Amino acid sequence: MNTIDKIIERIKPLDAKAMEQASQRQDRLTKPRGSLGRLEELSIQVAGITAEPIPRFNHKAILTMAADHGVTAQGISLYPAEVTRQMVLNFLEGGAAINVLSRMIGARVIIVDMGVRGELPAADGITCRPIAPGTRDMSTGPAMTHQQALDCLLAGIEIVEKEIKNGLDILGTGDMGIGNTTSASAITAVITGQPVPEVTGRGTGIDDAQLAHKIKIIERSLAINRPDATDAIGVLAKVGGFEIGGLAGAMLAAAANHIPVVIDGFISGAAALIAAGICPQAGDYMIASHLSAEKGHAACLRHLKLEPILKLNLRLGEGTGAALGIFLAESSVNLLREMATFSEAGVSDIQ
Amino acid sequence: MNTIDKIIERIKPLDAKAMEQASQRQDRLTKPRGSLGRLEELSIQVAGITAEPIPRFNHKAILTMAADHGVTAQGISLYPAEVTRQMVLNFLEGGAAINVLSRMIGARVIIVDMGVRGELPAADGITCRPIAPGTRDMSTGPAMTHQQALDCLLAGIEIVEKEIKNGLDILGTGDMGIGNTTSASAITAVITGQPVPEVTGRGTGIDDAQLAHKIKIIERSLAINRPDATDAIGVLAKVGGFEIGGLAGAMLAAAANHIPVVIDGFISGAAALIAAGICPQAGDYMIASHLSAEKGHAACLRHLKLEPILKLNLRLGEGTGAALGIFLAESSVNLLREMATFSEAGVSDIQ
Repeated sequence: MNTIDKIIERIKPLDAKAMEQASQRQDRLTKPRGSLGRLEELSIQVAGITAEPIPRFNHKAILTMAADHGVTAQGISLYPAEVTRQMVLNFLEGGAAINVLSRMIGARVIIVDMGVRGELPAADGITCRPIAPGTRDMSTGPAMTHQQALDCLLAGIEIVEKEIKNGLDILGTGDMGIGNTTSASAITAVITGQPVPEVTGRGTGIDDAQLAHKIKIIERSLAINRPDATDAIGVLAKVGGFEIGGLAGAMLAAAANHIPVVIDGFISGAAALIAAGICPQAGDYMIASHLSAEKGHAACLRHLKLEPILKLNLRLGEGTGAALGIFLAESSVNLLREMATFSEAGVSDIQ
Repeated sequence: MNTIDKIIERIKPLDAKAMEQASQRQDRLTKPRGSLGRLEELSIQVAGITAEPIPRFNHKAILTMAADHGVTAQGISLYPAEVTRQMVLNFLEGGAAINVLSRMIGARVIIVDMGVRGELPAADGITCRPIAPGTRDMSTGPAMTHQQALDCLLAGIEIVEKEIKNGLDILGTGDMGIGNTTSASAITAVITGQPVPEVTGRGTGIDDAQLAHKIKIIERSLAINRPDATDAIGVLAKVGGFEIGGLAGAMLAAAANHIPVVIDGFISGAAALIAAGICPQAGDYMIASHLSAEKGHAACLRHLKLEPILKLNLRLGEGTGAALGIFLAESSVNLLREMATFSEAGVSDIQ
């Protein structure tokens, strides 16, 4: 049995007993029953994921995977492709949005080179697992080989399993890759069955003409590659990206290891479609941090049956929404753990 | 000129220059323009409130005001009235939801006795400004005298002005008072002009019959007191609560002192209606943290023209939603301050 199959086999339903215990404790805490709304639900989901009736997040991490996309040759982005590499350097210097938000929530940022074009320094803060210097142009043929798709998934799995040894109680996902909304829209169109124009947005901020061009390029990519919605690894190979495959692997590994995985926006959502396509059970381990302003994201979350916690019109990626989601998930478990019960506090319950 | 009029006179429009500078800086940070959505808007609003182009929150506080309500004699709540006092003791012990969330965001909690029935210890963590041991039953006459309404407002103003001396860069509002959704619904009905059933919810969780009774009690209170929507202090006196008046005063003082005030849920929203009724300009200094599950809150925020940041089905009060809102407001200003610009990071801007 290969590594991916072994991981899938380890992904089990959530722990019903821990969820029941968390739910019962919520009802004994000093507040009207149900009055913490979504935060109560989150704490119960996390209890089920971790199989702990009263979970605690000692170690938080954001996994931000970066890679380049051959389809940028078609001029589908507002920014030049070298921005992928430049932004990875910005991550390493601590100057990007994800660095700021990770500091706010006390999470470490794991930056991964999944296939960035150009030289990157062998710095302490970067994990190097490049598959190739960017995917091939999906509008002229498959973005990657089947073996490369497997290699992305494996890299994601291995990175998470290594990070678990450093302590990992909750994982947020993030991405960097100029051109990757084009790939994410293609994946979303195939897997959700929505027409391309319905799931294609403005990415970094393209205008109407550029959007029409982007849609045409995605439609051409699907016509040439003919991905099969029921073969998630095939979809990844044909129209995916290395960072998307890496994130999908990371999501599977998180689920196999009972670690809640907080999904960022549209790119992470496309990775979640791949992960859930490979193993539907993995979806129960996912927490959707926010609904992105990027057009295809709502369809993506609907397909995954995930309800986003936040709606802030974010469309940055990097894991920024995931960081905010981790804060709310941690709030939910800290409330569950630290609030006094009615009897502990001597507060009268319902008359 | 009296203290309240002096405070009102000090409430000026937001600082347009600081907002413009914050907005221009947002466009130079290493992200696609506008991609941080609501967080960009928040940072610009805070710049305008504080008159600082790059604000910083060194000192955060949640102001949780507690008081009892005479209308509880009509059996409008699921919990006995003594829970107000018991919950204040729980706040002082650190076992309530607001204590947990304040720890998460590094904010101090200022607990104020605005008129709680029964003995409270003279503890360090409590500010004692009781107006009376609970309001009178508003369904049989005015909840408080005109002088008591002024005294609540003054207490709120004085507490905030004293706290500013201890350091205060952002303030969240919160409440505790069994029966106070009944008062908040009455205030909301009067000031927004909505029919009582449209703005009356289940509070701590009452059933259909209890809800019908609560609506009848509120309608009777309005019929007996005949509050005038254009006289906010009169509305407070007739159907308000001491904690609601205190919070309204605190909101005015925050605005006068250029301190962003993060409004919690329905009770704080009713206080905001009073504050904005007294001084409409104060509304610009308010940030609505969340849309409560309590029915009247949406009408309240619509009237205030405030867009809630979060929608988590919370209905606890205490300042719990405000604490989460402060985290997001702080995220927004930290992003504005700490992110690198395109030129600092050597990242290419739009082609």
